Amino acid sequence: MLRRTIFLIAMLVWPVMATAQTNEISADPDRMEQRIKALSAYGADASGATSRVAFSEADLAGRKYIMGLMREAGLNVRVDTAGNIIGRREGSDESLSPIMFGSHIDSVPGGGNYDGDVGVIGAIEVAQLLHERGIDTRHPLEIVSFTDEEGGLTGSRAMIGKLTDSALEVMTHSGLTVREGIFAVGGDPNRLELAVRKPGSIAAFVELHIEQGGILDEENINIGIVEGIVGIRWWDVTIDGFANHAGTTPMNKRWDAMVTAAELTLAINRIATELPGRQVATVGKIRALPGAPNVIPGEVVLSLEVRDLDAQKMQQVFELIKAEADRIGDARFTPIRFAEIDVASPPAPTDLQMRRIISTAADDLGLSSRLMPSGAGHDAQDMTHIAPTGMIFVPSVKGISHSPKEFTTALDMANGASVLLKTVLAIDGGALE
Amino acid sequence: MLRRTIFLIAMLVWPVMATAQTNEISADPDRMEQRIKALSAYGADASGATSRVAFSEADLAGRKYIMGLMREAGLNVRVDTAGNIIGRREGSDESLSPIMFGSHIDSVPGGGNYDGDVGVIGAIEVAQLLHERGIDTRHPLEIVSFTDEEGGLTGSRAMIGKLTDSALEVMTHSGLTVREGIFAVGGDPNRLELAVRKPGSIAAFVELHIEQGGILDEENINIGIVEGIVGIRWWDVTIDGFANHAGTTPMNKRWDAMVTAAELTLAINRIATELPGRQVATVGKIRALPGAPNVIPGEVVLSLEVRDLDAQKMQQVFELIKAEADRIGDARFTPIRFAEIDVASPPAPTDLQMRRIISTAADDLGLSSRLMPSGAGHDAQDMTHIAPTGMIFVPSVKGISHSPKEFTTALDMANGASVLLKTVLAIDGGALE
Repeated sequence: MLRRTIFLIAMLVWPVMATAQTNEISADPDRMEQRIKALSAYGADASGATSRVAFSEADLAGRKYIMGLMREAGLNVRVDTAGNIIGRREGSDESLSPIMFGSHIDSVPGGGNYDGDVGVIGAIEVAQLLHERGIDTRHPLEIVSFTDEEGGLTGSRAMIGKLTDSALEVMTHSGLTVREGIFAVGGDPNRLELAVRKPGSIAAFVELHIEQGGILDEENINIGIVEGIVGIRWWDVTIDGFANHAGTTPMNKRWDAMVTAAELTLAINRIATELPGRQVATVGKIRALPGAPNVIPGEVVLSLEVRDLDAQKMQQVFELIKAEADRIGDARFTPIRFAEIDVASPPAPTDLQMRRIISTAADDLGLSSRLMPSGAGHDAQDMTHIAPTGMIFVPSVKGISHSPKEFTTALDMANGASVLLKTVLAIDGGALE
Repeated sequence: MLRRTIFLIAMLVWPVMATAQTNEISADPDRMEQRIKALSAYGADASGATSRVAFSEADLAGRKYIMGLMREAGLNVRVDTAGNIIGRREGSDESLSPIMFGSHIDSVPGGGNYDGDVGVIGAIEVAQLLHERGIDTRHPLEIVSFTDEEGGLTGSRAMIGKLTDSALEVMTHSGLTVREGIFAVGGDPNRLELAVRKPGSIAAFVELHIEQGGILDEENINIGIVEGIVGIRWWDVTIDGFANHAGTTPMNKRWDAMVTAAELTLAINRIATELPGRQVATVGKIRALPGAPNVIPGEVVLSLEVRDLDAQKMQQVFELIKAEADRIGDARFTPIRFAEIDVASPPAPTDLQMRRIISTAADDLGLSSRLMPSGAGHDAQDMTHIAPTGMIFVPSVKGISHSPKEFTTALDMANGASVLLKTVLAIDGGALE
């Protein structure tokens, strides 16, 4: 009777107690590492790489493992019509919308074991800690493992109602189209509207992820607070020269598209490097035509990618490159043309309050942190359209990702999960209100 | 009887008379142009290009046409075991070895009507003029149309005994291997030794050809006296960078193989341009790996070709490029490796006396001329190994070649044939002795 009374009193002062209690709760590095290792078995190949591409047999087996862990953490597991795995834990206040957190477990072909996985295992760790300690929250919690992130943010795109019909027909590395793949994992691509969450229907979204650059590792900082996911713009750049015999055409009588492409590539690199800021610009692909050692290239086509957190800055970088290209093209009598490719994604800034909440969580846990952009795309960028969104980065050794060599220490993973736990509880405690 | 006596006297003073007579003999521009046009029908396609690739039906038809012209010019026509067409005219002195002249009639795919053709039609014009005027020579004359020049100097290579077994197995644009092609045109690849001419067995070789650069056209000069066919060296150049995520890797943390390749390409162009001389260096082919717009290239492979008439100069150009590559590679932490490809052909200088004879012939005809290297390869380069060799260039408008747009005027063709005639008669008259 006395214990029951104490319990009731405890429930009344719950929000305060929860905060107090979590000062003592932190994620278990050993458990997280053991689970990362167990998950890595699904899709491991002889070379040491993990190829758990979305919709493959390995992905199906990995998803089954994750759903088991979710159930172990006391979650009610379902698969939405987009194939997203959602483990739900009810809250004490039925009027409140859920706090959602998670990431993805599919990999690129020949990838590693941390990209995405840390965020899912970390989210389950949070649920499991709450479950083990018997801590209830006011908000429902939804732990999510998104479908086919590497193939184009398929699951989160469906969740915000922006997965197009044409995206469903794209062939994936699994040998299935996205449509077929969604069926294969238990979704229903003909009823995607059931997977859509309306703006305001989710109280907050948080994604824990490895930093795919090497900044945290190099600066020896525990936690990255993501300011947003950078925007991306792509161009096909064509240089028109004049193809001619490489033996008979004197050096001063050439309109060599390759030499112009070389000068342009150096200019792109110089402009992106010298301009203050964190913008990047890359020439990743190049082709010289006709492409024979004994023919002066008459045409070169190369790719230009520009990324930044600020759309205006991206435009500024492009305009500087364009102006320099015009100058180089004129000087060498080899015109340079830019054709933008329709794959642009705008910058997706995270919520300012969410950044503050994550920063406070890290401080309270005695962890160092810094603000930083995410140069890579994440499901979180979709979620910014429907919910206040935050992102927590943990170090990845040397910044390696999409590679069997990617590695994050057990302690760093646990630090991330502990910050995630504190962030979720702070939101639940009203920090966003 | 009187006429017969005059004829006998004429024969005795022949060399003097021949020289005197040829001052009045010149090639017929209209006939040459008409024949070039007739030949162009074999292999003409709808786009206006000529694809008379060696061993094709068009080549077989073109060869038949050429053999007909040779017979019309009083030549005895045979096909040697390498498939070379040889039209022979006996000389008055059986102790003398033949003077050989000619070129080829096969084309590149999508080529034009002058490369090679002008040299064969011009050689037949010389034979026809001698035939029509009843002019005999001391030396036998052999007018040659070489087999498969564009595929790798097949016919002339066989003639100097250097056509390898592996070259016979190469697949050609005709769909036949070189071996099958030689059979198809009436040769016998199993008895190539019968096509071989020993050093000293040919008194001289002369090739008339269009200049494949634009120098004669631009400088408005009638005749190019070829100093030699430039040597060629090829390298595969590999730049080792570090492939990484183009979004997450800051500009100052990249080992971008593409940026290094760009700096190297500019350096190659600058070195070849600024060094005094006529050397050329070309990057005609480039590949960035993995080759995605959103991945910093971890490796770039590009082709380097260097050509010059002087082997030492070629080596000097390479060493300057190599030193600059070492500097650039070190500065950017992206090593640059050079692997030479085994396709090198050494420079093939023409005979000094032959140059003088051609120069005199042009002067006597009132034609302007200049010395120049041939940047392109020709059958003449093989012939330098077995005979005193000379080459006569005529202008090609804008220097275009290997293109439907290549064009040489009827007058320029006739000038070339007239110089060829005077050159052959001068050699026959003892100018080389």
